[in-house]
Amino acid sequence: MKILERPIMPDGFECASVNCGLKDEGKDLSVIVTKEKANAAGVFTKNLFPGVPVVLGRKIIEKGELRAIVANSKISNVGTGDLGIENAKRTAKAVALEFDIPVEDVIMSSTGVIAMQLKIDLIENGIKGLSEVMSKNPVVAAEGIMTTDTYPKAISIKVNDAVITIIGKGSGMIEPDMATMLVYILTDAKIDKADLSKMLKDAVKDSFNMLSVDTDTSTSDTCLILANGLSGDIDKNTFFDALKFACIKMTEMLARDGEGASKLLTAEVNGAKNESEARILSKSLINSPLIKTMAYGADPNIGRILMALGKCNECHIIPEKMEAVINGTIVYQDSNKADFDEDNLRKSISGNKVSITINLNVGSGSAKAYGCDLTQGYVEENAAYYSS
Amino acid sequence: MKILERPIMPDGFECASVNCGLKDEGKDLSVIVTKEKANAAGVFTKNLFPGVPVVLGRKIIEKGELRAIVANSKISNVGTGDLGIENAKRTAKAVALEFDIPVEDVIMSSTGVIAMQLKIDLIENGIKGLSEVMSKNPVVAAEGIMTTDTYPKAISIKVNDAVITIIGKGSGMIEPDMATMLVYILTDAKIDKADLSKMLKDAVKDSFNMLSVDTDTSTSDTCLILANGLSGDIDKNTFFDALKFACIKMTEMLARDGEGASKLLTAEVNGAKNESEARILSKSLINSPLIKTMAYGADPNIGRILMALGKCNECHIIPEKMEAVINGTIVYQDSNKADFDEDNLRKSISGNKVSITINLNVGSGSAKAYGCDLTQGYVEENAAYYSS
Repeated sequence: MKILERPIMPDGFECASVNCGLKDEGKDLSVIVTKEKANAAGVFTKNLFPGVPVVLGRKIIEKGELRAIVANSKISNVGTGDLGIENAKRTAKAVALEFDIPVEDVIMSSTGVIAMQLKIDLIENGIKGLSEVMSKNPVVAAEGIMTTDTYPKAISIKVNDAVITIIGKGSGMIEPDMATMLVYILTDAKIDKADLSKMLKDAVKDSFNMLSVDTDTSTSDTCLILANGLSGDIDKNTFFDALKFACIKMTEMLARDGEGASKLLTAEVNGAKNESEARILSKSLINSPLIKTMAYGADPNIGRILMALGKCNECHIIPEKMEAVINGTIVYQDSNKADFDEDNLRKSISGNKVSITINLNVGSGSAKAYGCDLTQGYVEENAAYYSS
Repeated sequence: MKILERPIMPDGFECASVNCGLKDEGKDLSVIVTKEKANAAGVFTKNLFPGVPVVLGRKIIEKGELRAIVANSKISNVGTGDLGIENAKRTAKAVALEFDIPVEDVIMSSTGVIAMQLKIDLIENGIKGLSEVMSKNPVVAAEGIMTTDTYPKAISIKVNDAVITIIGKGSGMIEPDMATMLVYILTDAKIDKADLSKMLKDAVKDSFNMLSVDTDTSTSDTCLILANGLSGDIDKNTFFDALKFACIKMTEMLARDGEGASKLLTAEVNGAKNESEARILSKSLINSPLIKTMAYGADPNIGRILMALGKCNECHIIPEKMEAVINGTIVYQDSNKADFDEDNLRKSISGNKVSITINLNVGSGSAKAYGCDLTQGYVEENAAYYSS
């Protein structure tokens, strides 16, 4: 398997995007359509105030088949009552009409401001004529779902005869409990519904579910996979490995483009008592504001690492056995700060990646979490955000 | 009971502070001494990498009696192995010698950089002669324990014949699981050991344990109470009410002076299924970076409130029953944004206090959490921090 230099659409998939008037400028509405019905599965936010598209989407995905995704940015359709439900349904209907497909095969997403109604007339108008301008470039779909992302995100992987393409967005309010903001995985591989659903859950667990930009969990998080089967059968394990690899790559892209982020921060915990504790500890590192500002400031602060691990006080840590590594340099072992070349390490973590690895040596649990540094840019972006 | 305009020492307590050379400038070493042995109790961090003073302090406090506290700033004596233990004991010995008191009646605290050894010679020298310069002004002791605090914190409350004085520090790395950074509560009231211990735990639960500046938990958090009995007996309930009131006032002071903070942020949750859920939900609000930047940016962002509540997906929330209030203005009810005067509310939250109140109407659990906004100042302060 390999990442293609330019993302392409898997066989049978097309997309379009447009500015329909929700945003003052830039695309704000995307559709993705497969010419053959695709097997489909999805995971959604666990937030107790889910958006209308999430509530409806959970029902729509139940039958495991889809023809189209429609997604708008700028307004999230969350906290919008009965009118919100009607508007989401009208969006799907407009797509069904434009592409001449059954309305029950259309799933919708919305991302943006909460507690504001969709401008449904603009959306319906925007959908009209999209079937005439369909593109084979997945970046086109990625453009229409951007909120505070700095660039549209799409990657493609070739695995045997199949292509897996991921289109994603997500920049702040990201600590997914099921998926990240909006991620659409498209493939022409032939995978049956049950396998697709299980593979998606397994891949998400080690990728999007280990991503945190700011500990906050969006009300709209959605991750969908559509497999239309046009490239034929594929070995399941081979496909799953490629799927997980692609999801981790997209996770890194989303982390690196976190709001205000200047670098990718990863935290790997090995030798934990079990996998669950490894996940808690790696998330604690990735989420700590003091670790995040340390990454930004390029300071190898061992104290903050000990603090962030130690605050998970239900986990099993034996300080004497623990080893901490930053960008390949051992910084803590035998209950003490290790001897290391500080200038060299500072130079290394001044780059665009800070990797923390913890070896706990108390068991065999491992996990890796993905995040970003905390900068003035995050504060500026979110303090200036205007909700109405 | 009332807060005194200027803090004073309770009868029998004295303090001193000095620059012993740990910091380039400013006081870095404080002692507090009571002329009569005091009943004492303490609560400490639950972090799995506790500082040496916390490990030793848990033992020292077991007998429930103290004569002196010695505390240094700049170096925390955490992650320092056997030498750290020896240095902490030498600090206590120096105080015992200087004040002619038993070494087992001296408790020590250290706050500052982690994984660095105390400069014990400087500390021992600094302690020499302190008994000659003892002061009745608690601010003197507060000065020696400051790290990133912008001012020394001490308050006194008069309750019947007794005085309760709290000396505290704490600015970042504050989400205590037992107490906040360093808080010393001194009183001349006569309270027996068992009552003192219980009252401290109860008061801390609703005050310092509901404080969060940045979700991070210090390895040195310590809260001690010393009651030397010189003002005689007092009604227990009266004393407890005053103690809790004073602890909440100090909590507010610490929150307001969080690193880079420009305003106090409080989150009160009423009508939760039970007290435990009310605590989880109010902490979730106070800890959310998006709520904290919204407070800074003075935007009444309902979406972020729903998000921060909703991400506690094990709590019981019925969106239709919920009501959200910011600074006295209802902003959300009946599953929808409420009608309110946005300009007026923006003006109000542009001030130095943002209070969020949530009425869940599903039970009778209540809790209130204390925090601060997230500003560029926090990022600057913590990115610039140099750990060696």
